[in-house]
Amino acid sequence: MIRKIDHIGIAVSDLDAQVGFYRDVLGIEFHGFEELPDRGLKVAVFLIGNVRIELLQSTSPDSAIAKYIEKKGEGIHHIAFCTDNAQGELDRLRQAGVQLIDETPKPGADGMQVAFLHPKSTFKVLMELCQK
Amino acid sequence: MIRKIDHIGIAVSDLDAQVGFYRDVLGIEFHGFEELPDRGLKVAVFLIGNVRIELLQSTSPDSAIAKYIEKKGEGIHHIAFCTDNAQGELDRLRQAGVQLIDETPKPGADGMQVAFLHPKSTFKVLMELCQK
Repeated sequence: MIRKIDHIGIAVSDLDAQVGFYRDVLGIEFHGFEELPDRGLKVAVFLIGNVRIELLQSTSPDSAIAKYIEKKGEGIHHIAFCTDNAQGELDRLRQAGVQLIDETPKPGADGMQVAFLHPKSTFKVLMELCQK
Repeated sequence: MIRKIDHIGIAVSDLDAQVGFYRDVLGIEFHGFEELPDRGLKVAVFLIGNVRIELLQSTSPDSAIAKYIEKKGEGIHHIAFCTDNAQGELDRLRQAGVQLIDETPKPGADGMQVAFLHPKSTFKVLMELCQK
């Protein structure tokens, strides 16, 4: 079951400039940086209410974010939903006809297990499932 | 001050099909429809945690959503932040160098006053301020 929005992921080119904008101009609480070398990402995490905003900068030309920015430019990249049972939700969604990018959850930011649904099946909105 | 995320706005072409997907496949609570004739929109509102998801379908070829879909296709359209003082935040952000789409708040969904910031100033993320 999908319980809440965990975070909104935003593809960015210049992480330092954007951290300054979100923290100093918008005034949103900056939580810190995280490196995800396996996914070719450096992430800046913000907390607002009980939702996180993750600014995602590529550290590798092969990363999903590098390819996204090359194709579409900077902007909102995905919505991540919390679930208590990511594998169970993936199985349930696959049976409901949803195409999956990840058949099983993988390690993501903040120590979570994460898996993406294919935007072909979600009306062009890239969706991630997260489990603590 | 920006307090929390009020909603995520998603531009959609086929509202009924997408309502079925969010409600029946994802299992997110459907709150109802709202018509915004002044903005040329029909909105389907979902509740998840303390955040809303608004599916935005154009009812007029001149609406912002019609133009967005024509240019970029369906997908995540904007993030809306709650504030207790939308005009004060707009003034503060303008002074900080942020370009505004709306210099003053206007009536939006759910009886709120809303105003958009220009994505040129927000690294291509369309942002809305909302005040109850």
